[in-house]
Amino acid sequence: MQRIRCIIQYDGTNYAGYQVQLNGNTVQEELEKVLTKMHKGRRIKVIASGRTDSGVHAIGQVIHFDTELTLPMENWKRALATMLPADITVTKAEPVSSDFHARYDTTGKEYRYFIWNSKEPNIFKRHYYYHIRKELDVPAMKDACRYIEGEHDFTSFCSPKSDVKGSKVRTIHQASVAQRGEELIFQFKGSGFLYNMVRIIVGTLLEVGHHEREPADIPFIIEKENREFAGNTAPPHGLFLWKVDYE
Amino acid sequence: MQRIRCIIQYDGTNYAGYQVQLNGNTVQEELEKVLTKMHKGRRIKVIASGRTDSGVHAIGQVIHFDTELTLPMENWKRALATMLPADITVTKAEPVSSDFHARYDTTGKEYRYFIWNSKEPNIFKRHYYYHIRKELDVPAMKDACRYIEGEHDFTSFCSPKSDVKGSKVRTIHQASVAQRGEELIFQFKGSGFLYNMVRIIVGTLLEVGHHEREPADIPFIIEKENREFAGNTAPPHGLFLWKVDYE
Repeated sequence: MQRIRCIIQYDGTNYAGYQVQLNGNTVQEELEKVLTKMHKGRRIKVIASGRTDSGVHAIGQVIHFDTELTLPMENWKRALATMLPADITVTKAEPVSSDFHARYDTTGKEYRYFIWNSKEPNIFKRHYYYHIRKELDVPAMKDACRYIEGEHDFTSFCSPKSDVKGSKVRTIHQASVAQRGEELIFQFKGSGFLYNMVRIIVGTLLEVGHHEREPADIPFIIEKENREFAGNTAPPHGLFLWKVDYE
Repeated sequence: MQRIRCIIQYDGTNYAGYQVQLNGNTVQEELEKVLTKMHKGRRIKVIASGRTDSGVHAIGQVIHFDTELTLPMENWKRALATMLPADITVTKAEPVSSDFHARYDTTGKEYRYFIWNSKEPNIFKRHYYYHIRKELDVPAMKDACRYIEGEHDFTSFCSPKSDVKGSKVRTIHQASVAQRGEELIFQFKGSGFLYNMVRIIVGTLLEVGHHEREPADIPFIIEKENREFAGNTAPPHGLFLWKVDYE
């Protein structure tokens, strides 16, 4: 029995998220369908670093599964990429020890969130960028980002639908926003992220960008430990799970 | 009665081309549906600079139509952009004299064709770039481009399905290819283009890039005035109608 770790990319537009659920097809189902076919009908369970919501994309999602097949390792990537639909692909496949776990062994994650900030829509970016017509105050959002960084209890930036039972303390190593013409790119690196945390942080930072809040409101929101004090949840289609870290 | 000219953009992925036809929905139908609604059911006919095939995109398609409505001009663009589906938009709307004709008055067009030249697919570009895994000889394709430029009879680069009755002589002012990392961008400017002409030229240039033909084969192909001597028709999804010129 060999455990295999893969890095996968997916365009989340046409999926009801990563994780298998009752309604709608998911990325996990597509992966398990292909692996089950390769294993002649024996069901193969795929474990990911974490779920992503409907419409959210991934550049560096990590999964693992166990197999009894003895394919040469270079064939795994090709076989999976060929059999998967055009909006999911495998960029790396490698053997790992049988105690590796894609979910429990993560030491950190990176997310990016893309904004198209222009009076004109860009129809070719509509599934991957959140379009905001009104000009945003980028320096104010940069100031606000500094208050996100560090170790905090992020209860205020966590969906009440979260099933996290324990601590909501997380460490954000980097929170930043870069402007490149009409594109804004938010980048978040941290020890871990709560349910909807990046989208609620982005929604709150955008309110700073619209001068509806001050950068210095962020520590106040954090302190409240109450979701109602933070901003709206930004829509899913601008969000990318960019990288998952392991030891 | 006022004639209005619009510049429109569309993502051709989900359309059976620009022009109304029996099977599948088209960009023209979407435009006429919205205009007919704005005119309380009176059918409004839209004329474009030319048709584009299924899967082909447009950045600068030009259309015209006549209206009896007396909307302020700045409202036309917004009203149309709001009512059209998310994959079609209007970037400019302006009044023109009643003898302007979007099709007959064109003096030239520009097309671009995008290639993703990498061993790895890019799933986020899959609807807008033609993915070619094998490395292409860009200098050889640049050499071949020089033979495309100028005034030639382009019968060899015209689909036999073309309904052009007259001359197939066209002038190509610019044929070029630029490399930007894993992206290749072909650019063609000319007095006019025959049916499938850009896609057949690209398909032939790619055969040069794969060393299946020499750059100096191009004049020979042109001289034959026979479609069978040129290369395959490149797929539609890499092609963009970029700009339409008028006096």
